[in-house]
Order: sequence, then structure tokens, then C-alpha cells
Amino acid sequence: MGILVIGSVAFDSVETPFGKVDDVLGGSATYFSTSASFFTDVRLVAVVGEDFPEEPLDFLRSRKVDLTGLKRSPGKTFRWKGKYGFDLNEAQTLDTQLNVFEQFHPELPAGYEDAEYLFLANIDPELQMEVLQQVRRPRLIACDTMNFWIEGKREALIKTLKRVDTLVINEGETRQLADEPNLVRAARKVLAMGPKTLVVKRGEYGVLMFTEHSIFSAPAYPLESVFDPTGAGDTFAGGFMGYLAATRSDDEATIRRAIVFGSVMASFTVEDFSLDRLRRLQYSEIEERFRRVKLLTDFEGLS
Amino acid sequence: MGILVIGSVAFDSVETPFGKVDDVLGGSATYFSTSASFFTDVRLVAVVGEDFPEEPLDFLRSRKVDLTGLKRSPGKTFRWKGKYGFDLNEAQTLDTQLNVFEQFHPELPAGYEDAEYLFLANIDPELQMEVLQQVRRPRLIACDTMNFWIEGKREALIKTLKRVDTLVINEGETRQLADEPNLVRAARKVLAMGPKTLVVKRGEYGVLMFTEHSIFSAPAYPLESVFDPTGAGDTFAGGFMGYLAATRSDDEATIRRAIVFGSVMASFTVEDFSLDRLRRLQYSEIEERFRRVKLLTDFEGLS
Repeated sequence: MGILVIGSVAFDSVETPFGKVDDVLGGSATYFSTSASFFTDVRLVAVVGEDFPEEPLDFLRSRKVDLTGLKRSPGKTFRWKGKYGFDLNEAQTLDTQLNVFEQFHPELPAGYEDAEYLFLANIDPELQMEVLQQVRRPRLIACDTMNFWIEGKREALIKTLKRVDTLVINEGETRQLADEPNLVRAARKVLAMGPKTLVVKRGEYGVLMFTEHSIFSAPAYPLESVFDPTGAGDTFAGGFMGYLAATRSDDEATIRRAIVFGSVMASFTVEDFSLDRLRRLQYSEIEERFRRVKLLTDFEGLS
Repeated sequence: MGILVIGSVAFDSVETPFGKVDDVLGGSATYFSTSASFFTDVRLVAVVGEDFPEEPLDFLRSRKVDLTGLKRSPGKTFRWKGKYGFDLNEAQTLDTQLNVFEQFHPELPAGYEDAEYLFLANIDPELQMEVLQQVRRPRLIACDTMNFWIEGKREALIKTLKRVDTLVINEGETRQLADEPNLVRAARKVLAMGPKTLVVKRGEYGVLMFTEHSIFSAPAYPLESVFDPTGAGDTFAGGFMGYLAATRSDDEATIRRAIVFGSVMASFTVEDFSLDRLRRLQYSEIEERFRRVKLLTDFEGLS
């Protein structure tokens, strides 16, 4: 049955020390679904404006992303403008234009209510809840959020989290959500809010995954050229969920491998602007980088 | 033959969000030698003033650290005063009093010139060179340095680095030394300066080790209580060198395990002020934490 993702499809304008692009393809659902499409079928629910061109949609269709749930509304597409300094871990948002996203209420097309793997990208937790009310009994519900919602819609977010299996957020968000500076303690507090699994993204430092009984640390794949970190988090989530949906397994070893596949996918995204690297990515490259991460972390089986 | 370390023995005054201590035992050679002493014999070369008490020396002797090379000079012992905020990765130095360290020129006691494992802690690269001129042919020479020397004594440092096998520095120092923001490229530039191995300390994010043909990523052991990061880097180096000296091996698998033992040692140091946690540490605890780091990073052998 593959994955259902609800998030944004957007135009991004991004400046990094290595270049500058305007109005390129972006959005959480775009990165997520492209990444996940390397592992399984994806259905996308989002909204774009009248100004959105056909080419990116053709690309998503070529990746076998089902766009039945992509609504085209009167008005302009969601736009984000950001800038990164040499510390590529932190984006500075210069401008956000919600546009058609402002009035967006996700409506699942017929048949989508049977979704088995559901990813609620970083949108208003009230919209995340609207989606949860339209699905039956997903095998796995994962979600993302951000400081804006943790601060501004805390109660709605807490309600959503009670129904979420896996929360995928960054370090700062984990500390903020738990109101606790120590990451390990913060993680425990977040797990007590509902999720069985907390995946903490740490940019170039990799990922920490927490469950009630275990912690897993995955490195980021070390890169010589990081062009643009935009979309890395959603690409990670796409690889993570994609691998889980493809294997249909939920034992700890599989979840850990899914984390590594997610990291590997993100390592490609940041090598170029927009989805340009993912557009020319081959599955064999994913497997090769997965093997290299194994070598990167191994300290027992080498000799 | 064990390890020879040249560095500081000092009084530290430290403030963290979790407490405050004045004039407690500190210094790079102190942390290093205590940590290494869990694995092998250590000989320490340093200087203290007339004000230095006997108790810490008795403690070091109880750890079988050879203090023949510890000079007591007229004047006061080296003192450092620092402060950490909730971001425990970065210390703010409030005061440095070199005192007897100002006139210090390391003189190796008779017999020390045969040292097989040599660690040059973070001191003036000209003093590091003076030590190198007094030893014969160590099996492994490792050294540390800091922004102050990278900026102020770059030429002397470059000279020292040509004779060093393993350089152990932090992320920012790596980027500064190479004048390159990307860590992987910076690492390559540093390796071209002489060291065969570069160990990059990243605080709570663990360690990256670079050689010409490989990269190894080791996580930091996730801690619920980090009290005081002072000495973590030197404790790491002590565990790293201690394990290497104990095994007398230098294949890649051994070096990687040494990195993990170093990280494990550092994870104990930060759990309390000064060397308090190391003072009550048992070797069985080290082994237990090493096993846990294995579980923490494993994504293949779990099932």
C-alpha cells in the first residue's frame, strides 16, 4: 500500500556560501515523496497555486508518486526564502509566503483512508489532526513539527503526538518541546508524550533514535561538498519511512537500518540545490553509500 | 614501556549551570595520565608551584603514574578559570595565570628518551618541539593544540606537526588550521601537513577519525547528566593512547577501538567536576560502557 504523505509543495529561494537559486522546486512533501519513492509507492496530499508548472509534477509522476491528492487552488504557491552561512546546520528564514497554503485543509481522496504508512510533514498540528481523523488504522504514523508550532500551538501538538508512533524532529525542537536542555532527558520526556520512537536529527552530526529501552546513534555521511541543506530533514524522513514500508517490518534492527537509509538519502540531497541531486540519483548509489556508512562506524569486524 | 605525557598540572576554577568549584585539580597532563593509567603505565612531565599540595600527587602515584618528571618550581601553580553555559560544548575562559608554566622547559629524566608512546598535550608548539628533540624514536607521537597556537605560533606548530603521527584536536581547530570550512576537506589538508591520523573531537557529537584512506565515526556516549566538560579532550586522548600502548598494535581496527575507549573515558570525566568521577571509576565500568557503545551504533547484527 506504500506511504501517504501530507505536507507542502513549494517554491524555494535559497542562498548559501556556494550559490543562490530562486523559485526552485521545494516543499516538505516534495522532498519526502521523492526520497521515499526509491523504496516504495507514495501518495501525496498537498496544495499548489495556479502558478505551479507541470514539469515538477511530471517529475514526481515519473517517480511513481501518486498525485491524486494534490489540489490546485486559485492563488499562488507556497514560497519560502532562506539563507545559510558557513554553519550549514541553521537556516535563516528571510521570507515565508503561505499563499494557497493559508486556507489548506487536507482532504484525502477516496481509498487513501486505508493508508498503512502515514507521514505528517511539518504543518499546523491542527491540520495533522484533521488527517488523522480521515485515516483508519495506519500501521505506522510518523510526524515532524517545528519551533513555530511548539511555541504557538502546543496544546494541539500535544494532542497530535498522543496518536503518533514516531516523531522526527531536530535537537533544538526536542529540547524546546521537553523544556529540558539535556538531550537524553528531553528525549525521555518526549517519549512520555506518546511517540514510541523519537528520531532526533542533528544535521551534519547524524541522528539519535530513542525508544523506551534503547538509543541508536547513526552518523551523517561525511561530505566534501555540502551545497544546500534545504530539504535534508524531509529527505531523511522519506528514506526512513520508505525503507520501513518496503520491508513491512518493525523490529529494532529494521528501524535502525531505516535510519541509516534515511541519512544516506539526506546526504545526497544536500549535495546540490533543490531536488537536483535526487533527480539524477540511482538506487545503486544508495546501496553503495549504505555500505560505506557501515565501514564508517564499524569498530569490531574490520580486521 | 607505557606512555610519556608532557602537559599541564593545574588548579581549575569552573562554573557550569550545575555548580561551581574553585581551585580543584586539573590540567591536561593530569586528566590524560589518570585516564591512560586504566590501560597502561604512564610517565608524566610537567611543572607545579610551591603551593601544590601532596594529595593529588599521592592520587596520581596510586594510579601508578610515574612523577619523576614532575618539577616543583618556586612560585605558583598554573591556574585556569572558566565558565560553561547550557551549551556545554564551548568553554568561556575567564582567567589564565601561567605562573610557573611561563618559564617551563620540559626536561626528560634519564631513561625517558626511550619513550615508545608520546603525548604532547596542548602546550606551546616550541616546547613540544623541545620534547621531540629529547626522545629517540617513539612508536607513536600524538599531540594536541588549540586556536591560540594556531593563530600565534603557526610556523612552530607546522614544524611540530611534520613529526607527529596523530593529531587530536577539535572541529573548530581543524577548520582553523586548514583555513577551510568543510570538515572533510579541512581534514585532508591537515593530513597533508604531516600527521598520518587526524582525530577530530566534536564534544557531545563524538569523534571523527581521518586517515588517508578511511574515515571512522564514533558517537559520544549519551549521558543524562553532564556536569563539567573540563578535561574531556585530554581524558579522551588518555584512553585512546592508553589502549594503543596496552595492545601495542596499530592496525585500523585497534585504532578504532582505541577511539571508542577514549570516548568512553571522556564520558565518565564529564559526569562530575575535576577528576572526581575518574577517581572512583572501576575498569569494569569502562568495559560495560564500551559494550553499550557497540549496541548504540550497531545496525546489522542486532536481530
